[in-house]
Amino acid sequence: MELLKEKIKQEGIVLSNTVLKVDSFLNHQIDPVLMLEIGKEFSQRFADKGITKIVTIESSGIAPAVMAGLQMNVPVIFARKRKSMTLINDLLTAKVHSFTKNETNEISVSNKYLTENDQVLIIDDFLANGQAAIGLIDIVQQAKANIAGIGIVIEKAFQEGGQLLRDKGFEVVSLARVASLEEGKVTFVSDKTAEVMK
Amino acid sequence: MELLKEKIKQEGIVLSNTVLKVDSFLNHQIDPVLMLEIGKEFSQRFADKGITKIVTIESSGIAPAVMAGLQMNVPVIFARKRKSMTLINDLLTAKVHSFTKNETNEISVSNKYLTENDQVLIIDDFLANGQAAIGLIDIVQQAKANIAGIGIVIEKAFQEGGQLLRDKGFEVVSLARVASLEEGKVTFVSDKTAEVMK
Repeated sequence: MELLKEKIKQEGIVLSNTVLKVDSFLNHQIDPVLMLEIGKEFSQRFADKGITKIVTIESSGIAPAVMAGLQMNVPVIFARKRKSMTLINDLLTAKVHSFTKNETNEISVSNKYLTENDQVLIIDDFLANGQAAIGLIDIVQQAKANIAGIGIVIEKAFQEGGQLLRDKGFEVVSLARVASLEEGKVTFVSDKTAEVMK
Repeated sequence: MELLKEKIKQEGIVLSNTVLKVDSFLNHQIDPVLMLEIGKEFSQRFADKGITKIVTIESSGIAPAVMAGLQMNVPVIFARKRKSMTLINDLLTAKVHSFTKNETNEISVSNKYLTENDQVLIIDDFLANGQAAIGLIDIVQQAKANIAGIGIVIEKAFQEGGQLLRDKGFEVVSLARVASLEEGKVTFVSDKTAEVMK
């Protein structure tokens, strides 16, 4: 998605060879117009999948997921990282390990909102080692719903998550695939290479 | 906002005299089409305020805030409850006490995204005792930006937050004002009374 790649080039800050900061439009400040375009792109890319629900994880997944939900006219469920006071019963849970924070969190979704008839699109802001996506897949599968695809805003293609998910047979659509953050520079996987890697 | 009140009547679950659960469309599962309508309503109600930024707090504030930002064509900033790995420097912070959870959290916003020229609309999902809103006000005022108004999806008008904020001179627009949750029933402040209380 060219608009997104341009935004990353203009505003993304490379903090290290593995960390890309996009706090100005995705992870802290949010650009709602860009989010709408991202939602449209996901809607087009998964148009033939009969999506009935979108599942994401708080907090940075919510904005792109809600815009995709608006375009596809389906509800969005966000998994919680901390237990809510009013969300106590009948939880589907999964453990998600964060390598960057070196901690394991339990994420949870109420089983009320997923059924075995659902065609679920998982959406998240970043794909790195794939642990968050695997946790969401686990939860969706506990509900016996079908995973129709995984939509990622920014994939760090030099980390193992994308390959891991594709090897499991999931269709992963990443709107920007970062090949490298070396020398303080964002290099994208060229669109042609991305097609081959699908 | 009649559409919202209808949704609350149909799907809201009264857990106690003080707790209203709206997990089916706002706090866990999100109805994107309703969020868009909420965004439109905020945009209309604050149309003459010259809003330049929206500030909210993760996670449930994000969806209504992003839809308002889309309508008003302004960026949305969400305050974090936990420190991000990539959000470390130059933070504006405030302490927010949660009476329901009986804990105090530090919320934070990067000072990069608020300036003294900003006209800020604060948006949140719920207004109860007002502590979260007061924390956000504190942060916006630290940045010397102006608070142009406060937009709330659901105000529990039987708790003190709304009065507290209005007594401080802020314009608070609540799209649904709950007068009581007694006897397991949601009763709204009638629109007429709401006008008088403004």
